[in-house]
Amino acid sequence: MPQPVDFYFDFSSPYGYFAASRIDALAARHGRSTVWRPVLLGAIFKISGQQPLTTIPMKGSYALHDLVRSARWFNLPFRMPGKFPVSSIAPCRAYYWLQDRDPAAAKTLAQALYRAYFVEDRDISSPEITANVAAKLGHDKSAVLQAVNDAAVKERLRSEVDAAIERGVFGSPYIIVDGEPFWGSDRLDQIEQWLAKGKW
Amino acid sequence: MPQPVDFYFDFSSPYGYFAASRIDALAARHGRSTVWRPVLLGAIFKISGQQPLTTIPMKGSYALHDLVRSARWFNLPFRMPGKFPVSSIAPCRAYYWLQDRDPAAAKTLAQALYRAYFVEDRDISSPEITANVAAKLGHDKSAVLQAVNDAAVKERLRSEVDAAIERGVFGSPYIIVDGEPFWGSDRLDQIEQWLAKGKW
Repeated sequence: MPQPVDFYFDFSSPYGYFAASRIDALAARHGRSTVWRPVLLGAIFKISGQQPLTTIPMKGSYALHDLVRSARWFNLPFRMPGKFPVSSIAPCRAYYWLQDRDPAAAKTLAQALYRAYFVEDRDISSPEITANVAAKLGHDKSAVLQAVNDAAVKERLRSEVDAAIERGVFGSPYIIVDGEPFWGSDRLDQIEQWLAKGKW
Repeated sequence: MPQPVDFYFDFSSPYGYFAASRIDALAARHGRSTVWRPVLLGAIFKISGQQPLTTIPMKGSYALHDLVRSARWFNLPFRMPGKFPVSSIAPCRAYYWLQDRDPAAAKTLAQALYRAYFVEDRDISSPEITANVAAKLGHDKSAVLQAVNDAAVKERLRSEVDAAIERGVFGSPYIIVDGEPFWGSDRLDQIEQWLAKGKW
């Protein structure tokens, strides 16, 4: 059995949103499944010393332009959120809570959360808004709110982030194919080739 | 007459080296010429607060891996230089000195300097080595050494870097097509589409 493709992302990462729209179909074309693993870039940046992209002088204003252009490139609706970046703790916890119950539903929730943030400009750092997005998909809102404050779920997220750091995940999206790491939504063509032909 | 494509790069930038191998043919496919404009990322990073890529925790070790893999992707010979990054002041000055005399020869020199650094691991920050690379192409070595210390050439480079900063150039390669900026050797496909079809 071929290994699943590991898809690391942060819910506050627009390039993660772009990659999320493609990664499952891309992997499926090569007989691969995916495991989605949201992480907290804020925690990771404390180790790597990086700053949120849009706050970096010069690079930040380019990024704002590149994001809008890249959304068109990926043919995706996109609106730069009014508040950016935001903490993705609540969406992450909701995601992992659901993943342990229904992995496919968790991916659907992740995509809905991305749309809520990057299309509808809703502040998904709010547990209330995250729970509303889940409720719209038929999940129990109070169960989601409870999960966001659940000690086991908190610990689950912490260990996922620790494991990601251990594997070198420093940005979003970060995709690992058979141990080979690729960073960025602009590496999807390289990932496709890696899956099709192996190491080049 | 369509505008030339502006190709900004740093001689110490491996992704600049990758893009340099493609940009002229890419532009020519769409009836465009290019103007190569080497800059000093060190000076630019003082403004943007960025650090040399390979020195960044986590991101740096990924970059070392990505560079080798990207070189294969671009089908280019590549060896990570023993000393990295290096100052590109001497190569830049030699380049602009020659550009004012023979723009085509200056591009050939730039490519030779990139090969010297990223294939042969020669420290092109040394005026002596830069002059040797130029001499191998038939240029007068002592004239190159003189140019590297020439006040007018120094000023020429300074004003090029200032103008680049003014235009928002914060990394290498940085390519501007009809006012539209693209950063990174992984944007060549987008540049191709922009040249072919205009804004998407």
